[in-house]
Amino acid sequence: MAIETIKWENGKVKLIDQTKLPLSLEYIICSDVKTLWQAIKMLKVRGAPAIGIAAAFGVVLGIRNSKAKTFTQFEKDLSRVIKYLASSRPTAVNLFWALERMKKVALSHSSHSISRIKKLLYQESVKILSEDKNICRAMGHYGAGLIKDNDRVLTICNAGALATGDFGTALGVFYQAKTEGKKFKVYSSETRPLLQGARLTTWELLQEGIDVTLICDNMAASLMEKGLIGKVFVGADRIAANGDTANKIGTYSLAVLAHYHKIPFYVVAPKSSFDLKIKSGRDIPIEERSEDEVVEIYGKRIAPIGVKVYNPAFDVTPHGLISSIITEKGVVKPVYKTNIRKMLGA
Amino acid sequence: MAIETIKWENGKVKLIDQTKLPLSLEYIICSDVKTLWQAIKMLKVRGAPAIGIAAAFGVVLGIRNSKAKTFTQFEKDLSRVIKYLASSRPTAVNLFWALERMKKVALSHSSHSISRIKKLLYQESVKILSEDKNICRAMGHYGAGLIKDNDRVLTICNAGALATGDFGTALGVFYQAKTEGKKFKVYSSETRPLLQGARLTTWELLQEGIDVTLICDNMAASLMEKGLIGKVFVGADRIAANGDTANKIGTYSLAVLAHYHKIPFYVVAPKSSFDLKIKSGRDIPIEERSEDEVVEIYGKRIAPIGVKVYNPAFDVTPHGLISSIITEKGVVKPVYKTNIRKMLGA
Repeated sequence: MAIETIKWENGKVKLIDQTKLPLSLEYIICSDVKTLWQAIKMLKVRGAPAIGIAAAFGVVLGIRNSKAKTFTQFEKDLSRVIKYLASSRPTAVNLFWALERMKKVALSHSSHSISRIKKLLYQESVKILSEDKNICRAMGHYGAGLIKDNDRVLTICNAGALATGDFGTALGVFYQAKTEGKKFKVYSSETRPLLQGARLTTWELLQEGIDVTLICDNMAASLMEKGLIGKVFVGADRIAANGDTANKIGTYSLAVLAHYHKIPFYVVAPKSSFDLKIKSGRDIPIEERSEDEVVEIYGKRIAPIGVKVYNPAFDVTPHGLISSIITEKGVVKPVYKTNIRKMLGA
Repeated sequence: MAIETIKWENGKVKLIDQTKLPLSLEYIICSDVKTLWQAIKMLKVRGAPAIGIAAAFGVVLGIRNSKAKTFTQFEKDLSRVIKYLASSRPTAVNLFWALERMKKVALSHSSHSISRIKKLLYQESVKILSEDKNICRAMGHYGAGLIKDNDRVLTICNAGALATGDFGTALGVFYQAKTEGKKFKVYSSETRPLLQGARLTTWELLQEGIDVTLICDNMAASLMEKGLIGKVFVGADRIAANGDTANKIGTYSLAVLAHYHKIPFYVVAPKSSFDLKIKSGRDIPIEERSEDEVVEIYGKRIAPIGVKVYNPAFDVTPHGLISSIITEKGVVKPVYKTNIRKMLGA
């Protein structure tokens, strides 16, 4: 996997600017937390695991110039940085999970020197990234077991290398299956409004030599009816205790359509995407984004001035529509609260 | 209804160029059949009933300069023009219906002078347009009976004034309901790839003061789940003898989603959209259009070079998912072959 979505380099965070893909491969160098916050907010970096990694690096950027002499002062600076980063996007739980993890490192070393704590925080952020690589590979391993020769699979948005610190969640399954020599076709749903499927998923899969066909979101049902889709694989932004899954808008639509056409529907996500504090999908906060994302495409207006717009960034797929959830610990099936707790060891 | 999508003016066909909407209201003047053929092919005029009307006018343009002296010669010219127009788009049956009707006028007056036949053909084309106005109003009347105060309805593509010779099929229902003083909200699904919902339906409804909200196609399921959609109204491009309905890609998706959420799904279409020669939806030819429509939006590329694309322009909704079909003769319910035959008087 040649794609490096996010890395720490020379004391700065280097990100692929995903808003420029697929026409141009450009990088953003974040040397301060504000630049990184904007990169998350503006979807220059996106995908739940990648947002978590970016946020951890953001903490390092945000506190490295702290002039705190005492832990109390330092904790105040740290809390401010964490609160700021947490305000970037509300739905992906990996963001909060990574920030919480960074905070714990500081709190559990409160007796150490400030410079030592800063170093530990840096080490933790690097660890979050390297762990994500192992997690992706483990998910890929379990997920690839579900892919058979001649399968035709459908995915939405981008749950790949561009969404993680390695080869992805849903797309990682495809990369691993290819490595295992399996032959299959992928359909990528373009994913309006921001077209992550058209711009990012097709780009990634083409880079890696995977057979990919682009469709518009409203074509999936017709393909299913024609027998052209055998399985659906998607990522997740937050999974409730009962397995209800928030993911990119359009995911719930595919889940209902898959159910109607008796097609298995798989969610691929790391443990860090689970949020046991949330009982069911009803309680997951759903980000509503700007109207501009719908009425303008690359700055070109596609709808009349004055029209009202509804633009939720995510929807929630109830656990009953999910055949199984693939995590780094294995395959959760059926998707019940008790099975999820068992997998998480919670 | 101030919008005049298609009219005969000073010996020419005047069309709204729908590819320029909503940013600019421009007209195309067709003084020859080739310009008109291109207008149909390039979707400058679209919508099954409007295509039928345009095709009838196209016959007039195509034969008026015929130098035929005998009916045999004239018939040859006429057949060539009809064959040419029939090649513009394969799915909307109204195209073939209108061409067939024009041909019959000529054949049943074969003993008349050529100039007399030309005049009769012109009169028939004008009649097809004026009949469409009455048909739209009748469908609007029957359909409006299904709209209640505080309804929230969803539609896809454009089945309105821009698709017909009057106020439309599905949208005609809304215009009539408004005239009757009913209060309701419309959601318009943007309808990728060519965005007829975003560009045309919102524009029309705003012109007429109807409360309209634009959504992306992949958001409909989420809205249904939230209880925000009470009814779905769509048009049709061709309806088989058993009621299976071809309409804009994405329609079948909405029908399955409506079924899952127990929401009534209505098709609004004139008798001329029925094709009794076609037994079921499986036999309706589905136009596949250029990849460019998916990978470029207003000339801006949204996907990597080299990606494969699948771009069917229509899908087929089986009659079992259609609550009723509203025609100018009344409401067909349930949608069975026998009920359709009875309504058509066939």
